[in-house]
Amino acid sequence: MRKSLFLFASVLALAGFAVQADEGMWTYNQFPSSKVAAAYGFAPDADWLKRLQLASVRIAGGCSASVVSPSGLVMTNHHCARECIQNVSGQRKKDFNKDGFIARKPSEEPRCPGMEMNQLTAISDVTQLVQDATKGAAAERFSDVQRAAIAGIEKSCATGDEWRCEVVTLFRGGQYNLYKYRRLQDIRLVFAPEDAIAFFGGDPDNFNFPRYDLDVSFLRIYGADGKPWKTDAFLPFSKTSVKDGELTFVSGNPGGTSRGMTLSQVQDMRDSVLPNRLMDLSHARGWMTEYQQRGKEQLRHSNDDLFGVENSLKAQRGQHESLGDAGFTAQLTKDETDFRRKVVNNPQWMADYGDVWDNIGALTLKAKQQRKILHALTYTNGSVLMDIARAVWRHPVEVRKPNGERLVEFSDARLPQLAQSVLSDAPIYDELETAKITYGLTQMREVLSPDHPVVKKLLGNKSPQQVARALVRGTRLQELKTNARGEPTGGLRKTLWDADAATVAASSDPLLKFVASYDAEARAARKKFEEEVEGPLKRQQERLAQARFAVYGDTSYPDATFTLRLSYGRVAGWDENGTAVAPFTDFAGAYKRHTGAEPFALPASWLKARSKINLNTPFNFVTNNDIIGGNSGSPMVNQKGEVVGLVFDGNIHSLGGEFGFDARLNRTVAVHSQALLEALDKIYPAQHIAAEIRAGQR
Amino acid sequence: MRKSLFLFASVLALAGFAVQADEGMWTYNQFPSSKVAAAYGFAPDADWLKRLQLASVRIAGGCSASVVSPSGLVMTNHHCARECIQNVSGQRKKDFNKDGFIARKPSEEPRCPGMEMNQLTAISDVTQLVQDATKGAAAERFSDVQRAAIAGIEKSCATGDEWRCEVVTLFRGGQYNLYKYRRLQDIRLVFAPEDAIAFFGGDPDNFNFPRYDLDVSFLRIYGADGKPWKTDAFLPFSKTSVKDGELTFVSGNPGGTSRGMTLSQVQDMRDSVLPNRLMDLSHARGWMTEYQQRGKEQLRHSNDDLFGVENSLKAQRGQHESLGDAGFTAQLTKDETDFRRKVVNNPQWMADYGDVWDNIGALTLKAKQQRKILHALTYTNGSVLMDIARAVWRHPVEVRKPNGERLVEFSDARLPQLAQSVLSDAPIYDELETAKITYGLTQMREVLSPDHPVVKKLLGNKSPQQVARALVRGTRLQELKTNARGEPTGGLRKTLWDADAATVAASSDPLLKFVASYDAEARAARKKFEEEVEGPLKRQQERLAQARFAVYGDTSYPDATFTLRLSYGRVAGWDENGTAVAPFTDFAGAYKRHTGAEPFALPASWLKARSKINLNTPFNFVTNNDIIGGNSGSPMVNQKGEVVGLVFDGNIHSLGGEFGFDARLNRTVAVHSQALLEALDKIYPAQHIAAEIRAGQR
Repeated sequence: MRKSLFLFASVLALAGFAVQADEGMWTYNQFPSSKVAAAYGFAPDADWLKRLQLASVRIAGGCSASVVSPSGLVMTNHHCARECIQNVSGQRKKDFNKDGFIARKPSEEPRCPGMEMNQLTAISDVTQLVQDATKGAAAERFSDVQRAAIAGIEKSCATGDEWRCEVVTLFRGGQYNLYKYRRLQDIRLVFAPEDAIAFFGGDPDNFNFPRYDLDVSFLRIYGADGKPWKTDAFLPFSKTSVKDGELTFVSGNPGGTSRGMTLSQVQDMRDSVLPNRLMDLSHARGWMTEYQQRGKEQLRHSNDDLFGVENSLKAQRGQHESLGDAGFTAQLTKDETDFRRKVVNNPQWMADYGDVWDNIGALTLKAKQQRKILHALTYTNGSVLMDIARAVWRHPVEVRKPNGERLVEFSDARLPQLAQSVLSDAPIYDELETAKITYGLTQMREVLSPDHPVVKKLLGNKSPQQVARALVRGTRLQELKTNARGEPTGGLRKTLWDADAATVAASSDPLLKFVASYDAEARAARKKFEEEVEGPLKRQQERLAQARFAVYGDTSYPDATFTLRLSYGRVAGWDENGTAVAPFTDFAGAYKRHTGAEPFALPASWLKARSKINLNTPFNFVTNNDIIGGNSGSPMVNQKGEVVGLVFDGNIHSLGGEFGFDARLNRTVAVHSQALLEALDKIYPAQHIAAEIRAGQR
Repeated sequence: MRKSLFLFASVLALAGFAVQADEGMWTYNQFPSSKVAAAYGFAPDADWLKRLQLASVRIAGGCSASVVSPSGLVMTNHHCARECIQNVSGQRKKDFNKDGFIARKPSEEPRCPGMEMNQLTAISDVTQLVQDATKGAAAERFSDVQRAAIAGIEKSCATGDEWRCEVVTLFRGGQYNLYKYRRLQDIRLVFAPEDAIAFFGGDPDNFNFPRYDLDVSFLRIYGADGKPWKTDAFLPFSKTSVKDGELTFVSGNPGGTSRGMTLSQVQDMRDSVLPNRLMDLSHARGWMTEYQQRGKEQLRHSNDDLFGVENSLKAQRGQHESLGDAGFTAQLTKDETDFRRKVVNNPQWMADYGDVWDNIGALTLKAKQQRKILHALTYTNGSVLMDIARAVWRHPVEVRKPNGERLVEFSDARLPQLAQSVLSDAPIYDELETAKITYGLTQMREVLSPDHPVVKKLLGNKSPQQVARALVRGTRLQELKTNARGEPTGGLRKTLWDADAATVAASSDPLLKFVASYDAEARAARKKFEEEVEGPLKRQQERLAQARFAVYGDTSYPDATFTLRLSYGRVAGWDENGTAVAPFTDFAGAYKRHTGAEPFALPASWLKARSKINLNTPFNFVTNNDIIGGNSGSPMVNQKGEVVGLVFDGNIHSLGGEFGFDARLNRTVAVHSQALLEALDKIYPAQHIAAEIRAGQR
């Protein structure tokens, strides 16, 4: 039913034509095996699901991954490990993103500073608990009360640093589920190909197909004993190639979708949220591209940031364009009108839910009014030092509060992750930090106006650049000592993190004093937003979800929440304005597309290996699995639960997937498993990795 | 009636409250003197209007100005003369934008390379001529036929290089008027204050009020005899200060408004046109800001471009936000529904105009589909060299065609202006050009895709930056010799401009060959757009205008068209969310706002003069005149036709003026005439300029 509500209008033109939608990012505890069986004759059972669930790991920064050997070998995308590769490069004064990296044995596998993976071990339903806690709470207290309840639930679940528990809001408030994760905190780098082939085609080819990318990296999980993690829950590679039309599953963590939004919320996305993000991202893309002209080091330091910016820009641009489609708005209007009419015509529903749309509309307007100021007062423009300073400043104050009253990132269940990011020994680039703070402060002044008391306080008689330079030059928060395992042992940052409020307040560190000087205003803006917008909106969204359950039943899937989901589908090309796009590319195509100039330059290793490899090896392929950003690095498996591909992208039509799934056009793009093995075997001196993978094959 | 159609919804809340709208950018030949008389007891007569018309001059690049002495002294904004000031700086290895410029006598007034002013001497109605010409023409031929007719009319009007004639499309096709201008091509620089006070408050204060800007420059028109131009049509300065509530007139050239758009066109602006422009501008702002970090010279070279980008960004952002106002869309929907219902209920109107809205909707969609490709193939990203190369390449081919068949910029009436811009001795900065071409080509690849034949042809095996560098390094189109008056006398650029097609085709200049290599595709995209979109749309807009005249009468004003308009209004502050904004600021306020850091640093001259000046001198002020971008530099006069101010900005609410005039909030921002005289007298050694102005006072 979600399907009929949210399909793009264009799909409706196919009325009478049997569209096999395969839509949905299903939770593991509510996976519709019978639907799959009806469509494909195969019903995943509990064991099948559990194995896939345990072998699917989430990368804390925003990616998906999977374990592919009993010795903790992890497969993910190259772009999901870029930060690690860059950090390792910095330590060794190399550029492994550009040149690739291969460890010949475990002792050569360097640790990825600050990297963490999570293995989902259990899901339980806590809807009743959460909803009971907020029953009768005033709207402006809703967020606080709910946060306290959730913090309590999460705390009693996370029984140690090695566990992470998270109450996940599903159906925008219709359900609350408790997700329990094993934290895997010692991650090391095993293999990365060269940038040039991992991201062959670069930004121009991003979100496009046909495609020729070896967007893979292999990492390894290490246990607390410092040895490769042993596990039974790994995914063997398939011995056979996946075929056109064959059933495929994608297990990963789609970041977020907005398929359950009301018309007023969608309009706010279209007219305000997305345009503002697109401007910010375009601006960042502009200055970062030009920043890279400063020199080779600056280029290397900023490459990851720029990659992220361009990727988000393209994705959100696609989303925005899908919302500008008049047919989409017309369809959404029709669906919402239908939904509301059904509610109006049922006296009980009308009494229970009749005002929910108008309430959400009013709160959406309020959100729009507050968002800019909130953003300006809390935004750090990606500055690592600013983030550290703010966390260090707040830490001693927050941890003395009862768990449920803290800012959410300081709750017991989340604090370990925050600590790890604050105390990460990932390198900090002062010049890049200065640029980020400069542009961040410029934007703050623009939004708040030069006359705003905070702006006057922060800038005084100086320009944003003067202030930024003085802050970065003056701060010592870069100082951190770590042991061989990357664990923090000393340095100012560690000292202050462990200190009490008085000690932190007495610090003369200029950046710390800077964030402290407007912390009250930043907190107040956040609190105001929580009380006046977020909390009341949560309550209304709970009611909307209940209305939807009441009117349409509850057999659909929830909007994505960067939690583990399973999608089923099949290998399938598509029709692009009358031209058939075939589902597979091969190695030969990559050589054809090679021009010699970035981003269409194959690396030397590939040029050299040309005669040795099988040019007919399938390289990339597309399926109609329903995924979205966050699914990067997801394993794609066949009906036997064997790896047949590695998800790394969606086609351009998948971007509208934020708001609705178009079965005709929306495609997932993956690296073929055969391509991975062929490259490891023939192009790189990485036969030992191929062998480790093959050892698990059945 | 236009008023009731296009007022913002927020105004409607004031029902019953007498809003004196003073709305309208009126043409000089249809000025509603009786309306002014009814509201203010003063009716401008023909002589009054004619004098103001002749004293108002348009700056070809996109600004307004006025003659303020019988010796051709021209008053405009500093930001309208920036390019001239920068060019003069380059010639003399100074930075007059930063340091200011004062000529002590005419012989010290340097020529502004490439600058041209136009004085509107006559307006005549050619509606019948134009409409008769296209009667019966097929939709796809409409543009061609109309262009030929217009070129013919313009040519027979422009009887020599000293005249410029332009058929202006009013009411989006309801009327066609012929505007005849005297071309004033020898413009020299007389006075410019320092950047720091001309644009005090910088981008943060732009479009805001209270304000403290001396955004003025004085130029002088020289005649063909090389002597200051003598004229009776000048505006004396008022001897008295304008008062709160006093009647004011603004005479200038508002660039364009979209108040006559249909709902489908407004939605296209909101969802596609403006978001794309905002992304482009944000990107340009990003890279240019960072480009300025390369060094002082690069900063100076790019300052004007960055200023333009930030100004446009802020303006269009404001426009976009006004369109995101749900009330605005609701009001527009209501108005259009009402309009259409009136048409439907009248059988004759229905037969004549019934399908016009749907036709415009379909054409708007087509425009959206073609716009990106057209833009990619014709866009030069502000590269002066690319513009020159393209004009040089097309010139010999175009001028051999009959006048009516040429690309419009090569028509006899417009060619002189194009020639002047191609053969301008304004400096060209190779490094900045390289950056512009690099980003332009990157964008082209992004829009067209790397697989587009033009992209393959242009980039081959190189990156955009490699191509751009080679082009700028290789081209000799910078070469131009000029005489003392800035007239081109030789150099490759002049040689090629004067050459025939065979000679140009035989040139080995790489940039010329580059633009030539895809000129066919660029022309084809343009032709396709003209035939399939522009022409048919023109016809539909003519019909819509006729429908509006039929239903609502024709006593309104047309959308702005960067032609001379007259607005009446009065000095008035406004209520900003419950806070009264007073209409005047004074010199004392500027000293209060001074922090010492850009953009809030007063220049040394001002700090030094503080004790000498009258701090109570009014500085900037606001009126409710209806203006928009292009009005910069407009004179503001009182009922006696005397200068009381110099328009340089609108407040933030004026940005929505693109789509509708909100009388409560929309304000024009001007420099007070007393501030101009006080500064010339007491802050700068410019008493001679003040004296020249005072000599005209009555």
